[in-house]
Amino acid sequence: MPTKGLIMIHTGAGKGKTTAALGTAFRALGYGWKILVVQFIKGNWHYGELDSAKKFGDQFQICPMGEGFTWDTKNPEQDRQTARETWSLCVEKLKSGDYDLLVFDELVYVLSYDMLPVAEVLSEIRTARETQPALHVVVTGRDASKELIDAADLVTEMTEIKHPFQAEIRAQRGIEF
Amino acid sequence: MPTKGLIMIHTGAGKGKTTAALGTAFRALGYGWKILVVQFIKGNWHYGELDSAKKFGDQFQICPMGEGFTWDTKNPEQDRQTARETWSLCVEKLKSGDYDLLVFDELVYVLSYDMLPVAEVLSEIRTARETQPALHVVVTGRDASKELIDAADLVTEMTEIKHPFQAEIRAQRGIEF
Repeated sequence: MPTKGLIMIHTGAGKGKTTAALGTAFRALGYGWKILVVQFIKGNWHYGELDSAKKFGDQFQICPMGEGFTWDTKNPEQDRQTARETWSLCVEKLKSGDYDLLVFDELVYVLSYDMLPVAEVLSEIRTARETQPALHVVVTGRDASKELIDAADLVTEMTEIKHPFQAEIRAQRGIEF
Repeated sequence: MPTKGLIMIHTGAGKGKTTAALGTAFRALGYGWKILVVQFIKGNWHYGELDSAKKFGDQFQICPMGEGFTWDTKNPEQDRQTARETWSLCVEKLKSGDYDLLVFDELVYVLSYDMLPVAEVLSEIRTARETQPALHVVVTGRDASKELIDAADLVTEMTEIKHPFQAEIRAQRGIEF
C-alpha cells in the first residue's frame, strides 16, 4: 500500500492538543521531514517551542500569526479578517509542495466560530493532497464539527480530568505556555 | 506563589499520550530545562524522537528500556522484573536532582497490570519532590487508577474518535511510531 498523508485532528476541551502536535513534529523531524506550524490565534509570544525549533533550522518553521485576534463580539470583523489572512498563508504553504507535515494550530477553534467556511478549508486541503498525496496535515482546536471529523483520518479528543488551576497552582512557564 | 513542580498524567485509550509528553519536552527545552524520558515498554526501536533528541545534547536524554517485555501471561515474572529494573532507573533519576522534567512513559500501563505497587511509585515521587519542589513529572499510559489520578495535579485523557486503521491505512513511520 502506498504511503498516504493523513488528516489529523486534535480536539476536545483538555490540554495537549497543540502539545501533541509539537510532539508529532518532534518525532517526524528525526526522520528528516520538513514541517511548518501556523498558529492561528496565539499571537507571537516568546514560546519555548520557538527557541527549540531553531535547533532544526529550515526544517522546522513556526509562524505565530493571529496577533490581531480580539475575540471581541462587538468587533467580529477584525477577527474574521485575521483568520482570513492567516488562512491565506496556509493555502500558500499547502500549495507550495515544500512540506511533509503542516500543522494549523487552533484552526478548528476558528472554524467553530464560523470565521472561515469549513467547506473551503477542506477543499483546499483536498486539492493540495491531489498533487502531494503523502502530505500530512494536523489541525488543532476545540469543538471540531462533524464535517471536519468526517473528513479526517485520525481524530483524538483531549479531555481534562483534572487541572492544576483547581488546586490553585499558577500557570507555569514551560508547561502552560 | 512559588513555582511548584506538577505531577501530570496522560491517560486514555487514544493516541497522543506519549506524543504530548514529547511536545511538553520540546517546549520546555526552549526554556533550557534538563529533561529525561524513560520508556517503560517500547524497547529500543529507532524512533524519530531519538534522532531529534540528539540536537539538544545532554539537555534531553531518552532511555528506551523495557526491551524484555513479553506481555506473555504464562511468564509474568519476566515482565515484572523488567518493570522493576526500569523503575530502579527512574528512582535513581528522581533522586539525582539533575532534571527539571522527568517523563516516565507507559508507567501508568505497567501500574495498571500490577507490575509495580502504585503506593511505592507515588512515595518515591513525593520524596523526590520534597527536596526538589520544582521538579515536574509526566507519566503516560492507559487506565490510570483513581489513586494515581488523586495524586496528580493535571490529568488529561486522550480518546480516539477515529483512527486511520479504520480506513485501512497502514501504520506510518513518523506518525504511528
